[in-house]
Amino acid sequence: MSVLVAISGRDNTKLIARLTELLPNETIEQWPSCENPNAVEFVLAWNAPNDLWQQLPNLKAVSSFGAGVDSINMSLLHERVDVVRIVDEQLADDMAEYVLTHVLAQKLRLQEYFVKQSQSNWKPKRAYKYKHVGILGFGELGKACADKLLINGFTLSAWSKTAKKSGQVKLYTESQGLEEMLPQIDFLVCLLPLTEATKGIINAQLLAKLPKHACVINVARGEHVIEPDLLSALDSDNLRSATLDVFTEEPLPNSHPFWQHPKVTITPHCAAISDLNSVTEQIADNVNRLNSGLELNNRVNRTKGY
Amino acid sequence: MSVLVAISGRDNTKLIARLTELLPNETIEQWPSCENPNAVEFVLAWNAPNDLWQQLPNLKAVSSFGAGVDSINMSLLHERVDVVRIVDEQLADDMAEYVLTHVLAQKLRLQEYFVKQSQSNWKPKRAYKYKHVGILGFGELGKACADKLLINGFTLSAWSKTAKKSGQVKLYTESQGLEEMLPQIDFLVCLLPLTEATKGIINAQLLAKLPKHACVINVARGEHVIEPDLLSALDSDNLRSATLDVFTEEPLPNSHPFWQHPKVTITPHCAAISDLNSVTEQIADNVNRLNSGLELNNRVNRTKGY
Repeated sequence: MSVLVAISGRDNTKLIARLTELLPNETIEQWPSCENPNAVEFVLAWNAPNDLWQQLPNLKAVSSFGAGVDSINMSLLHERVDVVRIVDEQLADDMAEYVLTHVLAQKLRLQEYFVKQSQSNWKPKRAYKYKHVGILGFGELGKACADKLLINGFTLSAWSKTAKKSGQVKLYTESQGLEEMLPQIDFLVCLLPLTEATKGIINAQLLAKLPKHACVINVARGEHVIEPDLLSALDSDNLRSATLDVFTEEPLPNSHPFWQHPKVTITPHCAAISDLNSVTEQIADNVNRLNSGLELNNRVNRTKGY
Repeated sequence: MSVLVAISGRDNTKLIARLTELLPNETIEQWPSCENPNAVEFVLAWNAPNDLWQQLPNLKAVSSFGAGVDSINMSLLHERVDVVRIVDEQLADDMAEYVLTHVLAQKLRLQEYFVKQSQSNWKPKRAYKYKHVGILGFGELGKACADKLLINGFTLSAWSKTAKKSGQVKLYTESQGLEEMLPQIDFLVCLLPLTEATKGIINAQLLAKLPKHACVINVARGEHVIEPDLLSALDSDNLRSATLDVFTEEPLPNSHPFWQHPKVTITPHCAAISDLNSVTEQIADNVNRLNSGLELNNRVNRTKGY
């Protein structure tokens, strides 16, 4: 069999070298170079071209090059194809640390002080007392964030598609649960998978239900946010601030109003950066499992989409 | 008896109103208005004029308007005068939250990203892995910060005048201990009391012993830092960054090079702002204790100076 890497917009030299080391007996190629499409059974994909899949008649598994599988158009895959994703424990730790850091930064007004510093403006203000965090999405990453926030004195709510065991976290489901949760939230953290149901979920209607002092922190996907709606809420003082790590277009275009907005904190999609060694070991492990006829690790439910 | 408030550079209207409510039977005056200096037994002071004390022949106690007593020139006080300070548990919590927030902010490069945001510059970088924090001063505030950092996965060293029980914190004393501790530190947090021995402790000699990737966080007093030495260390890349809440001159003058320095994070002496209700209750309690002949709370050791 051969393994095809179809990841666009990224230098994959190190990745391929590492995979070649870990899988010395496999042919590893980078799309569009592919000597024998019939031999390809495993694809490592991120924003792969839609016409790729029909060219691989013996494809058995696709691995996303990340925790989310929204970059893979699953409707184009034969139903026998397994879709797997990367589960990186360090990724969950990093995400939890990012979310704690930016919730604290909003609580302690760091963005406000950075703007004042750039104006040589000395204006002490008390930190906010707010401490209720609401998480949209309560999977592995959401739980890691909740745990980290709980030990630091925050209180937590979470909204997810299915009710889960939640300990000290008050859990909500369905759209009625969301409506109930939003007015209580001081910091709203988006960690949802990107699906048809969650695309654009942070829109004018949702934002209107948050208190005016709330902050939105998006660490999921840019497409979760209707960006003009977020800007309107900030500009009309119906939202205190936003911390954004992900954007509809990345890198964020130079002319985008988020860059110079005094209420927006921008980080360049760096909340949780996969470790190449951990990622490549997981991929190689799944390639070996496929060869041995074992069930693959971290399979995605293709109907649910995550 | 009467109580005199001698706090300069601050609007004390609310403070006096609250003290008057809590101590309805005392005369409460604000220096320089003082009808009968002979009646003054208790002074609430912050940067009081040096010639005040000789005018109060029956002074029995001076309370600092803060956790530190460095604003009181104790050598000018008769030795029978008790010096007390404010111990505010919320203050320790707030300080610990500030220190955690700014250690995390330095670990996750928030200052770098804010500078890049102002330039519309998208440049993702991995967060630093550094996690060893050294605390200068291991009193009540130092311990609160250490506990908060420990539960968040940091490792801790502390340097203090006397060896204390320290749990998971590795403790150092004396100048030899400081020399031993400094090369291991990723984040150096200054929480020392300001005394003749600690004034200017963060100088070129100390900074040269820190690793080049270290960050300095000063939340004690501006006078702990020799500001030109700190600037030199930053400008010569012998120190990664500094977070400063306190300065030799406050408010920090407009022309000060710290304001626009890309490696300096400035907050306007807001790390731990006393709560007026808690402060005034403690002061009133000590005034009542003085009247009843009881030992005052939170007395300072005048020889040690803290």
